[in-house]
Amino acid sequence: MVIDLRSDTVTKPTEAMLRAMYEAEVGDDVYGEDPTVNRLERIAAEILGKEDALFVTSGTQGNQVAVLTHCVNGDEVILEADSHLFYYEGGAMAALAGVQTRTIVGERGALHPKDVEKAIRGVNIHFPRTRLICIENTHNRAGGAVIRPEQMAGVYEVAKGSGVPVHLDGARLFNAAAALECEVTEFTRFTDSVQVCLSKGLSAPAGSVLAGSRELIREARWWRKKLGGGMRQAGYMAAPGILALTEMSARLAEDHQRAHTLAEGLRKFSLHVEPVETNIVLVHTDKAGLSAEEFLSKLGEQGVLAVDFDETVVRFTTHRHISDQDIQNTLAAVHVILNS
Amino acid sequence: MVIDLRSDTVTKPTEAMLRAMYEAEVGDDVYGEDPTVNRLERIAAEILGKEDALFVTSGTQGNQVAVLTHCVNGDEVILEADSHLFYYEGGAMAALAGVQTRTIVGERGALHPKDVEKAIRGVNIHFPRTRLICIENTHNRAGGAVIRPEQMAGVYEVAKGSGVPVHLDGARLFNAAAALECEVTEFTRFTDSVQVCLSKGLSAPAGSVLAGSRELIREARWWRKKLGGGMRQAGYMAAPGILALTEMSARLAEDHQRAHTLAEGLRKFSLHVEPVETNIVLVHTDKAGLSAEEFLSKLGEQGVLAVDFDETVVRFTTHRHISDQDIQNTLAAVHVILNS
Amino acid sequence: MVIDLRSDTVTKPTEAMLRAMYEAEVGDDVYGEDPTVNRLERIAAEILGKEDALFVTSGTQGNQVAVLTHCVNGDEVILEADSHLFYYEGGAMAALAGVQTRTIVGERGALHPKDVEKAIRGVNIHFPRTRLICIENTHNRAGGAVIRPEQMAGVYEVAKGSGVPVHLDGARLFNAAAALECEVTEFTRFTDSVQVCLSKGLSAPAGSVLAGSRELIREARWWRKKLGGGMRQAGYMAAPGILALTEMSARLAEDHQRAHTLAEGLRKFSLHVEPVETNIVLVHTDKAGLSAEEFLSKLGEQGVLAVDFDETVVRFTTHRHISDQDIQNTLAAVHVILNS
Amino acid sequence: MVIDLRSDTVTKPTEAMLRAMYEAEVGDDVYGEDPTVNRLERIAAEILGKEDALFVTSGTQGNQVAVLTHCVNGDEVILEADSHLFYYEGGAMAALAGVQTRTIVGERGALHPKDVEKAIRGVNIHFPRTRLICIENTHNRAGGAVIRPEQMAGVYEVAKGSGVPVHLDGARLFNAAAALECEVTEFTRFTDSVQVCLSKGLSAPAGSVLAGSRELIREARWWRKKLGGGMRQAGYMAAPGILALTEMSARLAEDHQRAHTLAEGLRKFSLHVEPVETNIVLVHTDKAGLSAEEFLSKLGEQGVLAVDFDETVVRFTTHRHISDQDIQNTLAAVHVILNS
Repeated sequence: MVIDLRSDTVTKPTEAMLRAMYEAEVGDDVYGEDPTVNRLERIAAEILGKEDALFVTSGTQGNQVAVLTHCVNGDEVILEADSHLFYYEGGAMAALAGVQTRTIVGERGALHPKDVEKAIRGVNIHFPRTRLICIENTHNRAGGAVIRPEQMAGVYEVAKGSGVPVHLDGARLFNAAAALECEVTEFTRFTDSVQVCLSKGLSAPAGSVLAGSRELIREARWWRKKLGGGMRQAGYMAAPGILALTEMSARLAEDHQRAHTLAEGLRKFSLHVEPVETNIVLVHTDKAGLSAEEFLSKLGEQGVLAVDFDETVVRFTTHRHISDQDIQNTLAAVHVILNS
Repeated sequence: MVIDLRSDTVTKPTEAMLRAMYEAEVGDDVYGEDPTVNRLERIAAEILGKEDALFVTSGTQGNQVAVLTHCVNGDEVILEADSHLFYYEGGAMAALAGVQTRTIVGERGALHPKDVEKAIRGVNIHFPRTRLICIENTHNRAGGAVIRPEQMAGVYEVAKGSGVPVHLDGARLFNAAAALECEVTEFTRFTDSVQVCLSKGLSAPAGSVLAGSRELIREARWWRKKLGGGMRQAGYMAAPGILALTEMSARLAEDHQRAHTLAEGLRKFSLHVEPVETNIVLVHTDKAGLSAEEFLSKLGEQGVLAVDFDETVVRFTTHRHISDQDIQNTLAAVHVILNS
Repeated sequence: MVIDLRSDTVTKPTEAMLRAMYEAEVGDDVYGEDPTVNRLERIAAEILGKEDALFVTSGTQGNQVAVLTHCVNGDEVILEADSHLFYYEGGAMAALAGVQTRTIVGERGALHPKDVEKAIRGVNIHFPRTRLICIENTHNRAGGAVIRPEQMAGVYEVAKGSGVPVHLDGARLFNAAAALECEVTEFTRFTDSVQVCLSKGLSAPAGSVLAGSRELIREARWWRKKLGGGMRQAGYMAAPGILALTEMSARLAEDHQRAHTLAEGLRKFSLHVEPVETNIVLVHTDKAGLSAEEFLSKLGEQGVLAVDFDETVVRFTTHRHISDQDIQNTLAAVHVILNS
Repeated sequence: MVIDLRSDTVTKPTEAMLRAMYEAEVGDDVYGEDPTVNRLERIAAEILGKEDALFVTSGTQGNQVAVLTHCVNGDEVILEADSHLFYYEGGAMAALAGVQTRTIVGERGALHPKDVEKAIRGVNIHFPRTRLICIENTHNRAGGAVIRPEQMAGVYEVAKGSGVPVHLDGARLFNAAAALECEVTEFTRFTDSVQVCLSKGLSAPAGSVLAGSRELIREARWWRKKLGGGMRQAGYMAAPGILALTEMSARLAEDHQRAHTLAEGLRKFSLHVEPVETNIVLVHTDKAGLSAEEFLSKLGEQGVLAVDFDETVVRFTTHRHISDQDIQNTLAAVHVILNS
């Protein structure tokens, strides 16, 4: 049996989700007539503390629709240098929206308000207009780091001072809330729009939600259509999404606990492990005299899967299908590698 | 009970599709590991006579990914003036791909090869480069018109002569094949890429497939990702799609039959009805002294839904949920309108 | 000696222009400090009846800056199917601005208000937003046809009714005014922005002016900078431009007279010649049993240059360097061709 | 009399340049028939060690045409975080070309080859393709810093190893060559394309040249046309450009000498001044207890102009119109400020 720690995206839906899918009442969502999609959007808006919400097919789509809706071609967006929007979305912000990315190196994923302030452009024909600031929380490449509400507040204050909206890539926002044992609105109140994934730790098969003001979401529908994200009987995807939003966040703490256990175990092997805050563990493989690729290859031989994040950094991600035993087996596998 | 003739997109999945969805074996499709998606793509490629295929979330996405993959920014695309790609996709070709649309007015949706030849640009720095020709079959705004294989061959020959690829928007290609009682490959062999919808008449909840050469589909995956069309356990959408492709095309002839019956009935009321070839009926409302909007409003009062296509043109679309009785009731409703 | 009837763009500056260039007072125009550029912009704004104006390096740049300023990515622009903006600017509207071109076939270059009205999009997520209507006057490919003020008024009224601005590509607007013996404001009052070329018939070496509201021109400066149209001591180009605007339009009637003479002469040879209104003569070569290319080749052997507009259409353009004798010699050359 | 140290862009042409302009032999450059432009392009290609060259209206246009020619939409470009292309060109790379900017913080403007290597993307559908690396030399915001040929070689080697071309923004490349007393080809041989400004220190009124392979320049002409950079009798701008290229670089050493004198003088006032390598002096105003804006305002009262680069950084730029006496007067003005 493979222990798949590559990503929480590999999670499969619960039996309840499958049943919800099977029994979903659906309609043509392009006409706005899918009752399950409409319900998901209402619930998501409420949970996220926004006026309205839009079901999209992925986190990338939610983020790109947000950028396309907040900005026009020729604008500039401030975001963290290792953020998903910049790093993993294929350069889509520039390709689709024609906006320039202005990256800031954060501290464990968090943008410093001073840096943001400095990066906001003045009015000068040599400059693009700063039209959006993006935050990722939890921050994937910073090892699942939680951006604190007070950190978000700091950026938001600077942003408001310059009339620039803030978008939150909350692909794993529920992990952040679980880590701080707070509501997601503690984060979203410092944003103008937010995208959360229904898949990943929440285990829905697919889909994300973009939430924001009524006006923003109305415009967002136009861009979703252009991207081909308008689906017909989308309720079959929305039904498990409702359960993801309403019933699955409580269990994320378990994933975090197992990530901590994994990290502690790895540290006992004298490996350098980044601080763990949620369900992601970043371990440096150089002390083991291995590249990330070599480390992954040896792990794979023992049935444990993870991904490389850098030449000598490996990411493990815990999720619903990872048990305490899996963590122990993973540590055993690492032990074998280090002693081989 | 409402008789919904607005579109074949309102069709709900069959019980077999629901079961297939419930029982689907899935994986993370972004890793290429969803066996059901992979199976759908293999089957689609085979049916469409292409090397490879890609599951996308909608017809619009399939078309836009095709444009993005065939073209680069600054190119020009030749397509019919009333085609879906130009008319109904929100200007996405220009917005996302940066390509100029060069429209030709077709005859019942069919581009004349001479017109295409004339529209292909010569080499001159004042001109964009002609990089793609798009055909829609059946052609929605031309009233579900079938573009004959020989018409497609004519355009294809011109295109090949200039080294320009041809993309087929086959959202309703299976209707075209049903109308001519032929295989879809009779059409697709005159194309370099083709998009077919699994929803619409084939009744899957959502999704489309883009098919083409192995190389084209490899590139297309990159663009699908940028558009946010990469989904995780996408197999739940692909499972009913497999049934749509393999088991549902046979019944499209029934929809066509009912469309013919509806058209004949409407003509008996002395209304001008466009020639019917598949499941779409376009009727002119001016002879009834009504705008399309007024006509639809009166129809709606009697529980019959359709859509307007123009100020005095209404479209009826037959599909799996429309029975012979529904057609008779629709004609009765029109009779009431005309005599009120 | 070659008789160059290819285009009025080949005109060289007058001696007065050269002197104005030599003596121009200049500054750094990117800082807004070139007094000659500033003077040109003030004069152009006044002549064109607009609040402000911007010097640009070419007609294409003026048109593209207008599109970029009026529109955002995802919008749609209505324009004539043979207009310069669509036909000869390399697909730049889509490539640079991300806007879709919606072409209408005009009558001798004039858009019919009814057609424009029909082409303006309603509010529907399937549609782009109609954000601009472009008119070209005189219309090059329609053979230098003049769009009458009343025709422009008709389009403008429809446009205003839908809140859509109108841009005028007036590359040869002074020819239109000369033809009707009126002021250019008779045309520009039915537009929100206008571009006029200082080169072409007006004989400046290069450059155009974009005029419009103060706010529009302020924004246009940003886009001109992005296109690299911001020049430093641009006054050397602006100085002859001032003379072009203020002293050269009076002589355009001469060019028109010679074009008429040429057309009449060609008709005497039983060639089909399009109606002549300004300085452009379109002649069909098919009656001579020649393709445009063959015709041009034979003309060239006799030292007369023109350009092809279509497979069997040749364009002659009169300008300041073409004398009455040149016209007679051109007719003699054609005579030789037809009798060879 | 104002001492204008804002930029070397304020330089006016020499009398010889004015005469060259007045006497220039010109033609229609869109037809490729301007002999002076053709001569400029040949000379520039030779001096820059490239096969071919293209006259453009500005440095920004040369850079943007390079990006548009090397890349397609969806690509990524690596460049220094403070480079002109990223910082001062209005976000044009994203707006016009649809490419994502990946910025690296350099050391005095120089990209470290290791950082470039790390920033080049692997093949993964989550990533854009790395399609270009840009270097700026001298580097404006790094204070006119010279990127050494060996530093350029280091980046070029990494780039070649990954098949990624290198573009050099050499707006002030002749300053770099003057500083090292070498030929510009010492730098350009480590690039695939290069843009140099004819204005700035070389004193032409306007214009730049983009040089590269024959094929690259052929494509670049298409993009220049789309940007509206195709001018008619462009020879009037090219004529002074030829003198700029062939006769003006020898005198740049004088500007550098004066910049050194200015820097030394400022340091004597205990101000922190960045190392000076060419004609740019960056001085920090915080030790004077002043913001850059306040410092500039006080300077301005005494007739000395400079620009702010940051909240507490002011840039002085020497050029042909700045004499030794101007430097002394500037220092005297600063002395007054510091003692007021």
